[in-house]
Amino acid sequence: VMQVQWDMETAEKGGYDHFMLKEIYEQPKAIRDTLASRLKDGLVDLSKEISLTKEEIQRIERIHFVACGTAYHAGLVGKYVVEKLTRIPVEVDVASEYRYREPIINDRTLFIAVSQSGETADTLAALKEAKKQGAKVLAITNVVGSSVAREADDVIITWAGPEIAVASTKAYTSQLIAIYLFGIYLAQVLGTKEEAELKELVEHLLELPEKTEELLQPEKVKVVEQFARDIAKHQNLFFIGRGLDYAVALEGSLKLKEISYIHSEAYAAGELKHGTLALIEENIPVIAIATQKALYEKTVSNIQEVKARGAHLLGVTVEEDTELKKSVDEVIRIPATMDLLAPVLTVVPLQLFAYYACVERGYDVDKPRNLAKSVTVE
Amino acid sequence: VMQVQWDMETAEKGGYDHFMLKEIYEQPKAIRDTLASRLKDGLVDLSKEISLTKEEIQRIERIHFVACGTAYHAGLVGKYVVEKLTRIPVEVDVASEYRYREPIINDRTLFIAVSQSGETADTLAALKEAKKQGAKVLAITNVVGSSVAREADDVIITWAGPEIAVASTKAYTSQLIAIYLFGIYLAQVLGTKEEAELKELVEHLLELPEKTEELLQPEKVKVVEQFARDIAKHQNLFFIGRGLDYAVALEGSLKLKEISYIHSEAYAAGELKHGTLALIEENIPVIAIATQKALYEKTVSNIQEVKARGAHLLGVTVEEDTELKKSVDEVIRIPATMDLLAPVLTVVPLQLFAYYACVERGYDVDKPRNLAKSVTVE
Repeated sequence: VMQVQWDMETAEKGGYDHFMLKEIYEQPKAIRDTLASRLKDGLVDLSKEISLTKEEIQRIERIHFVACGTAYHAGLVGKYVVEKLTRIPVEVDVASEYRYREPIINDRTLFIAVSQSGETADTLAALKEAKKQGAKVLAITNVVGSSVAREADDVIITWAGPEIAVASTKAYTSQLIAIYLFGIYLAQVLGTKEEAELKELVEHLLELPEKTEELLQPEKVKVVEQFARDIAKHQNLFFIGRGLDYAVALEGSLKLKEISYIHSEAYAAGELKHGTLALIEENIPVIAIATQKALYEKTVSNIQEVKARGAHLLGVTVEEDTELKKSVDEVIRIPATMDLLAPVLTVVPLQLFAYYACVERGYDVDKPRNLAKSVTVE
Repeated sequence: VMQVQWDMETAEKGGYDHFMLKEIYEQPKAIRDTLASRLKDGLVDLSKEISLTKEEIQRIERIHFVACGTAYHAGLVGKYVVEKLTRIPVEVDVASEYRYREPIINDRTLFIAVSQSGETADTLAALKEAKKQGAKVLAITNVVGSSVAREADDVIITWAGPEIAVASTKAYTSQLIAIYLFGIYLAQVLGTKEEAELKELVEHLLELPEKTEELLQPEKVKVVEQFARDIAKHQNLFFIGRGLDYAVALEGSLKLKEISYIHSEAYAAGELKHGTLALIEENIPVIAIATQKALYEKTVSNIQEVKARGAHLLGVTVEEDTELKKSVDEVIRIPATMDLLAPVLTVVPLQLFAYYACVERGYDVDKPRNLAKSVTVE
């Protein structure tokens, strides 16, 4: 196992007002470190960390991502990524639900626990149960030697460095990177995707640190900050998106809830008509995400429905887009990347949005009420 | 196919203030009619409706429930029921997400579409796609001859009668009954459960109409009505529960949103600590559901956390419970039944709660703003 050195000194705020902001800005480095030493000849090499043999990988019939909170949202992205790259059916569940519902597990199940601290009580309990029932167990965690890491058969460490703020940011993006690496590795071993396609993914992965930095440039941050300050007096807010954008919307919504105490909720845009549209009234803030090409038109049509009912909209889309601004009040554009990788970039303005909404409302960014950094009790 | 006669006359309000209330009170009959003629010798007989042979059922490797809105929530119950009774892995997805995410479907997949109207555009499109990819397709719908019914290989009609109110009530409970019947039928064919256990389930199914009636008695309704009127001025509210109680919480929350425009959200109780607990402040109304024996203690512990932060709590538990009242402000007890069947009863007070909250707030119960009864466009 490679070791990255860290200590409490490097964990200081280093000029930032809050740990959360510092950690948001550390994401380019966290992504770079999590990628480092895991790439070889333009492909992924996890052979030093993953003990699963080719035969064992070929025997996998289903994969379960199990986690809590933000890590669960990383798992939701994992379902898209791994199913797309390997065509192995993936199930994602929150650990406190999974462990009590008699999940269907056998020796052809790969169980993947995602936990920043590696000490999340429900995740650890679910992991032990899955192991007992014969599953192979992989841990994705930020802490070498944590309980989850020790119990797992294999571990992919996210080299995000210590995360101090209760609201997780760089751990999430690093978890996504670990998931991409693992998904590509599975596809390489199984031969489920052309090598050229996987190499293209790897190339784009390598560009993510730089693209994340672009999103942290003052002019981009300013738009998000202004929108956050504008809506900070509101008590309710919605995030909408489809597919991977929906998965990221869930994470953006959780961030906002955790620290700003605005009751926000993420909705699959196509489900709005089945109920939540009733809540959309004049001036309600909505953050609409439309980065996925195949879903773009459908999402824009949902955005227009929301707009027609008077919502105050921030749109998140891709660099090349010139259309969305017609349907929303403000636009943030993420640098061009492959659709599958967009979540890593999309989440950054949402993290900043939560941060500035919290600052504007005057709450404690790093230590929100009622919440602990690691939930080590059930 | 058995025919139940209905016409526009029987669809009138018949003395009730609103269609929604009438339809809530029609649930005992809807459940009875959906069960009728599908039971034989204490077990389930769907042989007249289901063309799947024993061999075809044995070949099923996975089941996908696909639906929108309330019908999706019925599917969430379906996952618990079918996995528990058959050990076949079940996936549940909202149709607008499912159809665009390249789901893994083959000729060993059973696709189950749930739709009251049978005309839900996204559900219909998902069904056609699954069929094209070789899946067997079952429809659970309330409308004979609807598009979904016509496209499916097999159909289980829910004999709820016409549902006029936009907020679905009796269609949901009838969908649950159809799902129980189908789950038990699969278990009979596959031999995955002892006959005695299945017979016990059927016996308890037969008692549900009467138990639903108990929940509609004035003294029970009064408690719910009073709580709804008390909290009607609030803009935010949470539902919490675990397992099947969580699935029902999602439906209760949707009902409330649809007609009262209160921003309510359902949370898996074990996930609260991972973010939403930050939103729980003095006096915020929370509806906590604790009907499942195996999850009871854990849920009560979550309820106490919420209580400690000042929430104003309505608890929903089982008849024999004497503990919960210590942790909540008001209690509703549902008649004793098997844990697996509790959702049919649990949802009734939640429907009434949404109804009275809407009435107190003075909105149009049967025709909420922005929503249509059937979403026949994408």
